[in-house]
Amino acid sequence: MKLFIESAQKMESEAVALRRDLHRHPELAFCEYRTASKIIRRLQALGYDVAYGAAVMDKTAILSLPTEAEMAAARARACAEGADEALLAELAGGMTGVVATLKGNKPGKTVAFRFDMDCNDVNESADKAHRPAAEGFASQHEHQMHACGHDGHVTIGLVLAALLAERRAELCGTVKLIFQPAEEGVRGAAPMVAAGVVDDVDYFFGGHLGINAKDSNMLVSSTGGFLAVAKYAVHFTGKSSHAGLAPHQGKNALLAAAQATLALHAITRHGKGASRINVGVLQAGTGINVIADSALLQFEVRGETTEINAYMREEAERILRAAAAMYDVSIEIEGKGLADSFEPDADFAAELTALADQTGLYSTVQPMGRLDASEDCTAFLSRVQERGGKASYMLFGTKLAAVHHNGHFDFDESVLTRSAAWLACLAMHYTAK
Amino acid sequence: MKLFIESAQKMESEAVALRRDLHRHPELAFCEYRTASKIIRRLQALGYDVAYGAAVMDKTAILSLPTEAEMAAARARACAEGADEALLAELAGGMTGVVATLKGNKPGKTVAFRFDMDCNDVNESADKAHRPAAEGFASQHEHQMHACGHDGHVTIGLVLAALLAERRAELCGTVKLIFQPAEEGVRGAAPMVAAGVVDDVDYFFGGHLGINAKDSNMLVSSTGGFLAVAKYAVHFTGKSSHAGLAPHQGKNALLAAAQATLALHAITRHGKGASRINVGVLQAGTGINVIADSALLQFEVRGETTEINAYMREEAERILRAAAAMYDVSIEIEGKGLADSFEPDADFAAELTALADQTGLYSTVQPMGRLDASEDCTAFLSRVQERGGKASYMLFGTKLAAVHHNGHFDFDESVLTRSAAWLACLAMHYTAK
Amino acid sequence: MKLFIESAQKMESEAVALRRDLHRHPELAFCEYRTASKIIRRLQALGYDVAYGAAVMDKTAILSLPTEAEMAAARARACAEGADEALLAELAGGMTGVVATLKGNKPGKTVAFRFDMDCNDVNESADKAHRPAAEGFASQHEHQMHACGHDGHVTIGLVLAALLAERRAELCGTVKLIFQPAEEGVRGAAPMVAAGVVDDVDYFFGGHLGINAKDSNMLVSSTGGFLAVAKYAVHFTGKSSHAGLAPHQGKNALLAAAQATLALHAITRHGKGASRINVGVLQAGTGINVIADSALLQFEVRGETTEINAYMREEAERILRAAAAMYDVSIEIEGKGLADSFEPDADFAAELTALADQTGLYSTVQPMGRLDASEDCTAFLSRVQERGGKASYMLFGTKLAAVHHNGHFDFDESVLTRSAAWLACLAMHYTAK
Amino acid sequence: MKLFIESAQKMESEAVALRRDLHRHPELAFCEYRTASKIIRRLQALGYDVAYGAAVMDKTAILSLPTEAEMAAARARACAEGADEALLAELAGGMTGVVATLKGNKPGKTVAFRFDMDCNDVNESADKAHRPAAEGFASQHEHQMHACGHDGHVTIGLVLAALLAERRAELCGTVKLIFQPAEEGVRGAAPMVAAGVVDDVDYFFGGHLGINAKDSNMLVSSTGGFLAVAKYAVHFTGKSSHAGLAPHQGKNALLAAAQATLALHAITRHGKGASRINVGVLQAGTGINVIADSALLQFEVRGETTEINAYMREEAERILRAAAAMYDVSIEIEGKGLADSFEPDADFAAELTALADQTGLYSTVQPMGRLDASEDCTAFLSRVQERGGKASYMLFGTKLAAVHHNGHFDFDESVLTRSAAWLACLAMHYTAK
Repeated sequence: MKLFIESAQKMESEAVALRRDLHRHPELAFCEYRTASKIIRRLQALGYDVAYGAAVMDKTAILSLPTEAEMAAARARACAEGADEALLAELAGGMTGVVATLKGNKPGKTVAFRFDMDCNDVNESADKAHRPAAEGFASQHEHQMHACGHDGHVTIGLVLAALLAERRAELCGTVKLIFQPAEEGVRGAAPMVAAGVVDDVDYFFGGHLGINAKDSNMLVSSTGGFLAVAKYAVHFTGKSSHAGLAPHQGKNALLAAAQATLALHAITRHGKGASRINVGVLQAGTGINVIADSALLQFEVRGETTEINAYMREEAERILRAAAAMYDVSIEIEGKGLADSFEPDADFAAELTALADQTGLYSTVQPMGRLDASEDCTAFLSRVQERGGKASYMLFGTKLAAVHHNGHFDFDESVLTRSAAWLACLAMHYTAK
Repeated sequence: MKLFIESAQKMESEAVALRRDLHRHPELAFCEYRTASKIIRRLQALGYDVAYGAAVMDKTAILSLPTEAEMAAARARACAEGADEALLAELAGGMTGVVATLKGNKPGKTVAFRFDMDCNDVNESADKAHRPAAEGFASQHEHQMHACGHDGHVTIGLVLAALLAERRAELCGTVKLIFQPAEEGVRGAAPMVAAGVVDDVDYFFGGHLGINAKDSNMLVSSTGGFLAVAKYAVHFTGKSSHAGLAPHQGKNALLAAAQATLALHAITRHGKGASRINVGVLQAGTGINVIADSALLQFEVRGETTEINAYMREEAERILRAAAAMYDVSIEIEGKGLADSFEPDADFAAELTALADQTGLYSTVQPMGRLDASEDCTAFLSRVQERGGKASYMLFGTKLAAVHHNGHFDFDESVLTRSAAWLACLAMHYTAK
Repeated sequence: MKLFIESAQKMESEAVALRRDLHRHPELAFCEYRTASKIIRRLQALGYDVAYGAAVMDKTAILSLPTEAEMAAARARACAEGADEALLAELAGGMTGVVATLKGNKPGKTVAFRFDMDCNDVNESADKAHRPAAEGFASQHEHQMHACGHDGHVTIGLVLAALLAERRAELCGTVKLIFQPAEEGVRGAAPMVAAGVVDDVDYFFGGHLGINAKDSNMLVSSTGGFLAVAKYAVHFTGKSSHAGLAPHQGKNALLAAAQATLALHAITRHGKGASRINVGVLQAGTGINVIADSALLQFEVRGETTEINAYMREEAERILRAAAAMYDVSIEIEGKGLADSFEPDADFAAELTALADQTGLYSTVQPMGRLDASEDCTAFLSRVQERGGKASYMLFGTKLAAVHHNGHFDFDESVLTRSAAWLACLAMHYTAK
Repeated sequence: MKLFIESAQKMESEAVALRRDLHRHPELAFCEYRTASKIIRRLQALGYDVAYGAAVMDKTAILSLPTEAEMAAARARACAEGADEALLAELAGGMTGVVATLKGNKPGKTVAFRFDMDCNDVNESADKAHRPAAEGFASQHEHQMHACGHDGHVTIGLVLAALLAERRAELCGTVKLIFQPAEEGVRGAAPMVAAGVVDDVDYFFGGHLGINAKDSNMLVSSTGGFLAVAKYAVHFTGKSSHAGLAPHQGKNALLAAAQATLALHAITRHGKGASRINVGVLQAGTGINVIADSALLQFEVRGETTEINAYMREEAERILRAAAAMYDVSIEIEGKGLADSFEPDADFAAELTALADQTGLYSTVQPMGRLDASEDCTAFLSRVQERGGKASYMLFGTKLAAVHHNGHFDFDESVLTRSAAWLACLAMHYTAK
């Protein structure tokens, strides 16, 4: 097996600088204009064939986008912060996905890697005990932070690209590097899958740093425990009236939303496994003495399997419509995100574990881990598996300063080059199969 | 004005004996077989023309009856306790209403009086401080008690009948004595009104002993503050399943009923006046580890006006159907009772007050009182008023041993002959108009 | 009786101009800096002895104020729109109440009149069918509008002041003109009452234009049907956690608020009369996949009597604390406003009706009307009544373009001088008693 | 390995007769007087040392019992149906557990087997397609039926006893046969464990016929997927009042129960695995026009692990107390049953699988199955495991006529002798270790 350890080590300081630049400039889902622009230009420079925008995303498969105003503002900010303006027209409207292809000299298999690019709507800590704050690479934007490590994912992808470009002469088959927008909210994978970007893929690898792999010398070579998830925004519209003079003339949207909230949380548990339900946001009413004529409710359901999640969705929709009927108010139920579960392939996991052991990159390789969360990478994983390919989602071990989605999140940056080296091994190995 | 004071006083001991006999033998709504039988025979003996059963009740206007088995048992018991078996076939099936007519020798108006006959489902106290227990005339039947004074009402009606029969020669016009079943549950007036028993009435008088007239020398000559009311039984039917193995396969009728209960109590208050809502009974489920497949919910709504009550009914029905839809269970909503509000006639109240003052029967006569409760006598009152007659609901003052519907309820029996004497005055006065 | 009709008519155009100036510059509760400043300067010019700020308001009796930032912004805006800067330091912090006193030459009674000054948080219509928009005197500020006629009330007060100043020579006793902040939210009367401004008053008059007096030639000389009211803001604080990974580690403030909302609306109705409950605002949660750690709930309760409202308050507080305990979250219940009911004096109403009839100002004078709403003028009314004085709340008839609190609200301005003339009569009559 | 196949086959018809006798005389939890009596006499006849009653059950560890009246009636019925009256005094009060000991001639290990004896409160089908009905061995008692196969379990235990008694000469160590009351409701194991009946046990075997082993030639040699469970009865006590006249004077126990029901079902799901919640019974209120002063709520919670169940219990108790506080009613929370989860030992499972394969009794042996339900056998299993012993819960394959707890439940009786033969092998094997 071909190893990339030395080459990767040489890229260490560049990798850290790149990650920190991305960390300083986090971009929310479907607003990754600067990030995508940097990725495109760098991959083109490395000799990749780079497609983006409508070429790699089916707009009709996007469940929900930021407002036009939000996207316009993000685009303007990206320009101001160094995005390549020439690219922005094609990326506009959330079309920020990128697929870079490198073809080898000999025939071989097609091997794809997926990296997600967006940040969280979290405020980064200004505490001096927080390294990004202490060392000056904390987010420059309020309520926007790479608190889930996607800055690291993009960096790993770009170091991988460089490693493979260096050894292009030895490469067989085809390598595809997929950079996905909007993993947060589980909305970005669907339009790329719908555009067919993995339909020709024989081996597919996704992954995440940290999560349940919190040691820096550890790899989890395959992951299950994906919770299927669906996210919604619900709008109730009633009729206002004066709460003292004529309360009976109102149609109370606030009560409908409160009633729905309780009933949603009380959805009967499924006998076949765990589920989740969370009404995370409820905003209703305008004045203390007015029957509230509008309410917004944002919620998500999850299930250990896609089937359980489908049950939760069905129950939720029936409950919501009944709650609206109970208060004689109208309702609009808007899908905001959707990800399925994924059943990992135990044989492939064992094969990957053996490979990883050979590289010597890791002191511990765990064949099967659990995500215990939701990820729309499952859309790619399932599509490849359904079409007869092999697919695995890995966890790249790294020490964490705090849990994901927390304002103190940070990680051990040695994960960047180690992961890139490992993925480069996989690329060489499987393209040559 | 013709007075009846002396004649009434002579009937005192007979009145008390009669009331106590009725008190010992209370009968529930639509099961007043013994009571009606006694009334019929006594009135026939006094020379009244007595109609009963289908002649005075429209069976199709009965909202709800006891079960056939309950009525059969009541009938058997009535026989055993001295009811005239010959009458029972015509009274069967809850057709226990009685209308007795006495025609005067001269032309005149038609004046009607209404008395209710049924008892409450209350356990009578066995406490020796409770006079009926101490003096041996307490109810002989568990969970059945004249705790609202209808034994007194029937007695007043029969004493009135005797007083008028004595002076028949002086009578003009027509007197109608109406004995109504099932005031408890507000179900007995509607079928008698539907049968037209007050359609020819010029003056109508209903009334109650006690309530807001708690002094024995007091009369309230007209009463408002009737709360309109509607009573319901609601049946939810779902699907059972094992709460551990397959809870998601159930349709939870218990949850539907619990949800409905909260939403019913949360019906928005009406801007035009007071309302009430009470889910008084909720029975659901069969086992701790079984998703409940059935639930029974009994409730009532009330309103200061018939309009407010109509609003409450409409809201309640919509909420119930939505609660069933929320849990995907079926629902049956069954009306159990209905009474409207009634707007008293202030001029007629003043006229009655003046008349009562003339009789010297009362030390205090209050022209207008409030019931603050529901009474289906309003069905008679409104019908007479709508057809151009005058109608009043009076409160006959009497000292009470405890509040109505309590197991210690008892009253000062002097109210019996005093009230009969007063009503006899009214009969003579208004038939002669 | 001394009449003021002619003098008032001469002030017609000035009155209209004044009202329209106020209408263009509406100020929210406790932010009436410009309004109070104009009132003070005008009354001083008329020779009144004018007290304001801490002299007439007890700061400790203010239940809730706007934020410091909101008040500072309002003060700056008032300056920019012509408020007298010299006065603002004393009015700062919501201390915008004004009491102007005019003493007569002869001894007599003390007669007080109360006018409220604040506007509503309503957007004024820009529709050309809306006279203020058509004639250029619509509100210059978004979400701020005199939609309840307090611009008219202030104008009536100032015209009254002018009428009395003209005839000061004839005046006995003392006239007090009270200008109250923050009637909206029922918070401004309490601090003025606490400061003792009506403790020396023999006759007190409050009132409102429109409401249930919608004809321009009509007066309601006394009003009942005040709903007691209490307003609250409730803050629930829980603990956030990730809704997929560790929902059980959260403390759900949103669920506590939703549960509380339903239970508040389900407070058992009071047997003695009507009540109200409205959760008008519910805002909870920050993200769809986060257990909500905070919730804000704004609500009010009302009662036909102060007793019923006290019952509603007690129930509400117990329910709120239990809802917090149910979800293991903390709670802060903040009183935002409070007004009692008021029982009008029927004899005084009759006396006022006779007086009004004598003036010839009105074609219809109704002795007793109903407000069917809440008003903290009851704090003044009750205080005067408790101390042995006479107090009445009147409705000044005027045609309305739309209901109160609506963006199309407007009224027939002839009410301004007619009302001032009538109040001047009362002032002359009762000071001379 | 010593086999028992032939000996067992000879006992076939006796086994079937025994099972059918038990099936005809089902006894509810803690009322297994006849069943225990038959077991005791038969085991004594076989030469076992038999302990029962207080010798094998710690009364203080019983969470809940039937009423004294129910147990007295059951005892009388047992006598009438052939129980040995001489034994009943010691079994009285639910002390129906039995432990029979057989000591071998040589030293060895102690091996225990546990069988449960009680029936379900299910009505047995009278349908002729239902074999027990067709062949005359259906339950003689309404609402009592062996619908979970415990009649089979007792029979297996008694056949096992006979097989071992026949070969006593070859036996080493000690065999204990444990007959447990009240598995339904998960209440009978705890008092036996508390009495120490497995404290000296090296190898412990429990099991169930059917469940997830529905083929007659199948064995599941070890089982996980036990849901921890806790069962409760909750009593709310409020104060009644008239729903029309004085609803505000009541304390509404029905509303407290309804509110609690919804909040219980809405307990936040645990992030570490599946849970269950079911309010299976809710009974509240006495009359439609009375504020309900009492409510009974029966519910259970379950968890994939004991930890998750503990979380559910803690949440449930807090919610219940808060719901009572919300309505100002008192509450009593009564534990009715409790069972933990159990983590099976994979190595022991593999060992048992190999042994079973050797016997040739089964065509399929599955090393690890899932119960997906609750069983208080876990109390024995965990105790043995904690003290260093080996423990396994097996599923004895048999064809089922209907699912467990259904009125049509029946099973292929060949499971009786096959299972006994297998357990006898285990007894000989492990006592000799």
